[in-house]
Amino acid sequence: MARTLEVIGERWTALIVRDALLGISRFDDFHASLGVPTNTLTKRLASLVAHGILVRSNGEYALTAAGRDLEPVIRSLLAWGDQYRAPNGPPRLVHHRPCGTELDPLALFCTTCDLTVPARDIELRAGPGSRRSASRR
Amino acid sequence: MARTLEVIGERWTALIVRDALLGISRFDDFHASLGVPTNTLTKRLASLVAHGILVRSNGEYALTAAGRDLEPVIRSLLAWGDQYRAPNGPPRLVHHRPCGTELDPLALFCTTCDLTVPARDIELRAGPGSRRSASRR
Repeated sequence: MARTLEVIGERWTALIVRDALLGISRFDDFHASLGVPTNTLTKRLASLVAHGILVRSNGEYALTAAGRDLEPVIRSLLAWGDQYRAPNGPPRLVHHRPCGTELDPLALFCTTCDLTVPARDIELRAGPGSRRSASRR
Repeated sequence: MARTLEVIGERWTALIVRDALLGISRFDDFHASLGVPTNTLTKRLASLVAHGILVRSNGEYALTAAGRDLEPVIRSLLAWGDQYRAPNGPPRLVHHRPCGTELDPLALFCTTCDLTVPARDIELRAGPGSRRSASRR
Protein backbone atom coordinates (compact mmCIF):
# COMPACT_ATOMS: atom_id res chain seq x y z
CA MET A 1 0.00 0.00 0.00
CA ALA A 2 2.85 2.36 0.77
CA ARG A 3 4.05 1.74 -2.79
CA THR A 4 0.62 2.65 -4.15
CA LEU A 5 0.71 5.96 -2.30
CA GLU A 6 4.12 6.68 -3.80
CA VAL A 7 2.33 6.59 -7.15
CA ILE A 8 -0.97 8.35 -6.51
CA GLY A 9 -0.57 9.92 -3.04
CA GLU A 10 0.18 13.30 -4.51
CA ARG A 11 -2.89 15.46 -5.07
CA TRP A 12 -2.47 16.40 -8.73
CA THR A 13 -1.36 12.93 -9.69
CA ALA A 14 -4.56 11.40 -8.37
CA LEU A 15 -6.64 14.04 -10.15
CA ILE A 16 -4.81 13.36 -13.43
CA VAL A 17 -5.63 9.66 -13.10
CA ARG A 18 -9.25 10.55 -12.37
CA ASP A 19 -9.41 12.68 -15.52
CA ALA A 20 -7.70 9.97 -17.57
CA LEU A 21 -10.33 7.48 -16.37
CA LEU A 22 -12.95 9.95 -17.60
CA GLY A 23 -11.39 9.89 -21.06
CA ILE A 24 -9.11 12.92 -21.06
CA SER A 25 -5.92 12.23 -23.03
CA ARG A 26 -4.39 15.54 -24.21
CA PHE A 27 -2.12 17.88 -22.26
CA ASP A 28 -4.30 20.91 -22.97
CA ASP A 29 -7.42 19.11 -21.80
CA PHE A 30 -5.79 18.03 -18.51
CA HIS A 31 -4.68 21.62 -18.08
CA ALA A 32 -8.15 23.02 -18.74
CA SER A 33 -9.81 20.49 -16.46
CA LEU A 34 -7.47 20.80 -13.49
CA GLY A 35 -6.20 24.36 -13.60
CA VAL A 36 -2.79 23.04 -12.57
CA PRO A 37 0.32 25.05 -13.57
CA THR A 38 1.80 23.70 -16.81
CA ASN A 39 5.25 22.94 -15.34
CA THR A 40 3.61 20.93 -12.53
CA LEU A 41 1.39 19.12 -15.03
CA THR A 42 4.41 18.26 -17.21
CA LYS A 43 6.23 16.76 -14.20
CA ARG A 44 3.24 14.80 -12.95
CA LEU A 45 2.48 13.33 -16.38
CA ALA A 46 6.13 12.31 -16.76
CA SER A 47 6.01 10.68 -13.32
CA LEU A 48 2.87 8.72 -14.23
CA VAL A 49 4.54 7.52 -17.45
CA ALA A 50 7.66 6.54 -15.47
CA HIS A 51 5.51 4.60 -12.99
CA GLY A 52 3.74 2.69 -15.77
CA ILE A 53 0.33 4.27 -15.15
CA LEU A 54 0.17 6.20 -18.41
CA VAL A 55 1.74 5.66 -21.82
CA ARG A 56 2.42 8.54 -24.18
CA SER A 57 1.85 8.14 -27.87
CA ASN A 58 1.45 10.79 -30.59
CA GLY A 59 1.14 13.52 -27.99
CA GLU A 60 -1.70 11.80 -26.16
CA TYR A 61 -1.69 10.00 -22.83
CA ALA A 62 -3.50 6.69 -22.32
CA LEU A 63 -3.92 4.59 -19.21
CA THR A 64 -2.10 1.27 -19.00
CA ALA A 65 -3.83 -1.78 -17.49
CA ALA A 66 -2.31 -0.81 -14.13
CA GLY A 67 -3.69 2.69 -14.56
CA ARG A 68 -7.19 1.48 -15.41
CA ASP A 69 -7.10 -0.76 -12.33
CA LEU A 70 -6.68 2.32 -10.14
CA GLU A 71 -10.38 3.03 -10.73
CA PRO A 72 -11.59 1.49 -7.41
CA VAL A 73 -8.96 3.50 -5.54
CA ILE A 74 -9.97 6.76 -7.19
CA ARG A 75 -13.67 6.03 -6.82
CA SER A 76 -13.43 5.22 -3.10
CA LEU A 77 -11.33 8.35 -2.51
CA LEU A 78 -13.96 10.47 -4.27
CA ALA A 79 -16.86 8.94 -2.36
CA TRP A 80 -15.19 9.41 1.04
CA GLY A 81 -14.27 13.01 0.26
CA ASP A 82 -17.83 13.80 -0.82
CA GLN A 83 -19.22 12.36 2.40
CA TYR A 84 -16.76 13.76 4.92
CA ARG A 85 -14.87 16.65 3.40
CA ALA A 86 -17.48 18.56 1.46
CA PRO A 87 -19.51 20.66 3.97
CA ASN A 88 -21.05 22.69 1.13
CA GLY A 89 -21.93 19.59 -0.87
CA PRO A 90 -19.82 17.72 -3.42
CA PRO A 91 -17.41 19.93 -5.39
CA ARG A 92 -18.56 18.21 -8.55
CA LEU A 93 -21.37 15.91 -9.57
CA VAL A 94 -21.11 12.81 -11.72
CA HIS A 95 -23.45 12.57 -14.69
CA HIS A 96 -24.09 9.99 -17.40
CA ARG A 97 -22.95 11.87 -20.49
CA PRO A 98 -25.37 10.37 -23.07
CA CYS A 99 -28.55 10.98 -21.02
CA GLY A 100 -27.45 13.54 -18.41
CA THR A 101 -28.69 11.59 -15.37
CA GLU A 102 -26.83 12.33 -12.13
CA LEU A 103 -25.10 9.23 -10.75
CA ASP A 104 -24.07 8.04 -7.31
CA PRO A 105 -20.27 8.44 -7.52
CA LEU A 106 -19.56 5.03 -5.96
CA ALA A 107 -22.20 2.88 -7.68
CA LEU A 108 -22.17 4.70 -11.05
CA PHE A 109 -25.53 3.13 -11.89
CA CYS A 110 -27.77 5.05 -14.28
CA THR A 111 -31.41 4.61 -13.25
CA THR A 112 -32.59 6.11 -16.55
CA CYS A 113 -30.60 3.73 -18.78
CA ASP A 114 -30.61 0.82 -16.28
CA LEU A 115 -26.88 0.15 -16.57
CA THR A 116 -23.61 0.61 -14.74
CA VAL A 117 -21.81 3.45 -16.47
CA PRO A 118 -18.21 2.93 -17.63
CA ALA A 119 -15.83 5.72 -16.67
CA ARG A 120 -15.49 6.93 -20.26
CA ASP A 121 -19.22 7.80 -20.36
CA ILE A 122 -19.08 9.95 -17.24
CA GLU A 123 -19.26 13.72 -17.26
CA LEU A 124 -18.23 15.82 -14.26
CA ARG A 125 -20.20 18.98 -13.56
CA ALA A 126 -19.60 21.61 -10.92
CA GLY A 127 -21.49 20.74 -7.72
CA PRO A 128 -22.68 22.96 -4.85
CA GLY A 129 -19.26 22.72 -3.16
CA SER A 130 -17.32 23.76 -6.25
CA ARG A 131 -14.97 26.72 -6.06
CA ARG A 132 -15.79 27.45 -9.69
CA SER A 133 -19.22 28.44 -10.87
CA ALA A 134 -18.79 27.11 -14.41
CA SER A 135 -18.83 23.45 -15.37
CA ARG A 136 -15.43 21.80 -15.11
CA ARG A 137 -16.63 19.28 -17.76
CA MET B 1 -10.68 13.69 -3.46
CA ALA B 2 -7.81 16.13 -3.00
CA ARG B 3 -9.12 16.67 0.53
CA THR B 4 -9.10 12.94 1.19
CA LEU B 5 -5.46 12.74 0.13
CA GLU B 6 -4.66 15.56 2.54
CA VAL B 7 -5.81 13.17 5.26
CA ILE B 8 -4.44 9.79 4.19
CA GLY B 9 -2.04 10.58 1.32
CA GLU B 10 0.96 10.30 3.61
CA ARG B 11 2.42 6.83 3.81
CA TRP B 12 2.49 6.28 7.57
CA THR B 13 -0.90 7.86 8.04
CA ALA B 14 -2.51 5.35 5.68
CA LEU B 15 -0.71 2.47 7.41
CA ILE B 16 -1.90 3.69 10.83
CA VAL B 17 -5.50 3.72 9.56
CA ARG B 18 -5.00 0.21 8.17
CA ASP B 19 -3.76 -1.01 11.55
CA ALA B 20 -6.60 0.76 13.36
CA LEU B 21 -9.08 -1.01 11.06
CA LEU B 22 -7.41 -4.26 12.09
CA GLY B 23 -8.08 -3.47 15.75
CA ILE B 24 -4.83 -1.88 16.92
CA SER B 25 -5.53 0.91 19.43
CA ARG B 26 -2.43 1.46 21.61
CA PHE B 27 0.62 3.56 20.78
CA ASP B 28 3.02 0.73 21.56
CA ASP B 29 1.13 -1.68 19.30
CA PHE B 30 1.16 0.76 16.36
CA HIS B 31 4.86 1.21 16.97
CA ALA B 32 5.53 -2.54 17.05
CA SER B 33 3.42 -3.16 13.94
CA LEU B 34 4.81 -0.38 11.76
CA GLY B 35 8.37 0.11 12.93
CA VAL B 36 7.87 3.86 12.52
CA PRO B 37 10.02 6.24 14.63
CA THR B 38 8.13 7.27 17.79
CA ASN B 39 8.27 11.01 17.06
CA THR B 40 6.79 10.42 13.60
CA LEU B 41 4.11 8.15 15.05
CA THR B 42 3.20 10.78 17.67
CA LYS B 43 2.78 13.43 14.95
CA ARG B 44 0.77 11.20 12.64
CA LEU B 45 -1.61 10.07 15.40
CA ALA B 46 -2.14 13.70 16.46
CA SER B 47 -2.86 14.62 12.82
CA LEU B 48 -5.43 11.82 12.51
CA VAL B 49 -7.13 12.99 15.73
CA ALA B 50 -7.12 16.58 14.41
CA HIS B 51 -8.69 15.41 11.14
CA GLY B 52 -11.46 13.52 12.95
CA ILE B 53 -10.30 10.07 11.85
CA LEU B 54 -9.27 8.86 15.31
CA VAL B 55 -10.41 9.77 18.82
CA ARG B 56 -8.12 9.37 21.80
CA SER B 57 -9.51 8.14 25.08
CA ASN B 58 -7.72 6.67 28.09
CA GLY B 59 -4.49 6.38 26.13
CA GLU B 60 -6.10 4.37 23.34
CA TYR B 61 -6.99 5.41 19.80
CA ALA B 62 -10.31 4.45 18.21
CA LEU B 63 -11.62 5.11 14.72
CA THR B 64 -14.48 7.56 14.29
CA ALA B 65 -17.30 6.81 11.81
CA ALA B 66 -15.32 8.76 9.18
CA GLY B 67 -12.26 6.64 9.99
CA ARG B 68 -14.14 3.36 9.69
CA ASP B 69 -15.52 4.53 6.34
CA LEU B 70 -11.96 4.75 4.99
CA GLU B 71 -11.98 0.95 4.78
CA PRO B 72 -12.83 0.78 1.02
CA VAL B 73 -10.04 3.28 0.30
CA ILE B 74 -7.46 1.33 2.30
CA ARG B 75 -8.62 -2.01 0.88
CA SER B 76 -8.44 -0.85 -2.75
CA LEU B 77 -4.98 0.65 -2.15
CA LEU B 78 -3.78 -2.65 -0.69
CA ALA B 79 -5.20 -4.72 -3.53
CA TRP B 80 -3.67 -2.55 -6.24
CA GLY B 81 -0.29 -2.52 -4.53
CA ASP B 82 -0.32 -6.31 -4.20
CA GLN B 83 -1.08 -6.68 -7.90
CA TYR B 84 1.23 -4.09 -9.40
CA ARG B 85 3.91 -3.16 -6.90
CA ALA B 86 4.87 -6.46 -5.30
CA PRO B 87 7.17 -8.32 -7.74
CA ASN B 88 8.19 -10.79 -5.01
CA GLY B 89 4.60 -11.39 -3.98
CA PRO B 90 2.49 -9.53 -1.43
CA PRO B 91 4.47 -8.07 1.49
CA ARG B 92 1.88 -9.44 3.86
CA LEU B 93 -0.97 -11.90 3.67
CA VAL B 94 -4.44 -11.47 5.13
CA HIS B 95 -5.77 -14.26 7.34
CA HIS B 96 -9.01 -14.88 9.23
CA ARG B 97 -7.79 -14.79 12.80
CA PRO B 98 -10.21 -17.35 14.37
CA CYS B 99 -9.60 -20.10 11.78
CA GLY B 100 -6.34 -19.03 10.11
CA THR B 101 -7.64 -19.22 6.52
CA GLU B 102 -5.87 -16.94 4.05
CA LEU B 103 -8.22 -14.37 2.51
CA ASP B 104 -8.37 -12.47 -0.74
CA PRO B 105 -7.47 -8.94 0.42
CA LEU B 106 -10.24 -7.28 -1.56
CA ALA B 107 -13.13 -9.70 -1.02
CA LEU B 108 -12.20 -10.72 2.57
CA PHE B 109 -14.43 -13.80 2.22
CA CYS B 110 -13.49 -16.81 4.36
CA THR B 111 -14.22 -20.01 2.43
CA THR B 112 -13.76 -22.09 5.59
CA CYS B 113 -16.29 -20.16 7.68
CA ASP B 114 -18.47 -19.10 4.72
CA LEU B 115 -18.62 -15.43 5.75
CA THR B 116 -17.24 -12.01 4.89
CA VAL B 117 -14.67 -11.24 7.56
CA PRO B 118 -14.94 -7.89 9.41
CA ALA B 119 -11.67 -5.98 9.63
CA ARG B 120 -11.34 -6.61 13.38
CA ASP B 121 -11.09 -10.39 12.76
CA ILE B 122 -8.24 -10.07 10.28
CA GLU B 123 -4.67 -10.97 11.03
CA LEU B 124 -1.76 -9.81 8.87
CA ARG B 125 1.14 -12.21 8.36
CA ALA B 126 4.41 -11.63 6.55
CA GLY B 127 4.07 -12.62 2.88
CA PRO B 128 6.71 -13.63 0.31
CA GLY B 129 7.42 -9.96 -0.50
CA SER B 130 7.96 -8.94 3.12
CA ARG B 131 11.19 -7.26 4.12
CA ARG B 132 10.87 -9.01 7.44
CA SER B 133 10.97 -12.75 7.79
CA ALA B 134 9.00 -12.96 11.04
CA SER B 135 5.28 -12.34 11.43
CA ARG B 136 4.53 -8.65 11.92
CA ARG B 137 2.01 -9.26 14.68
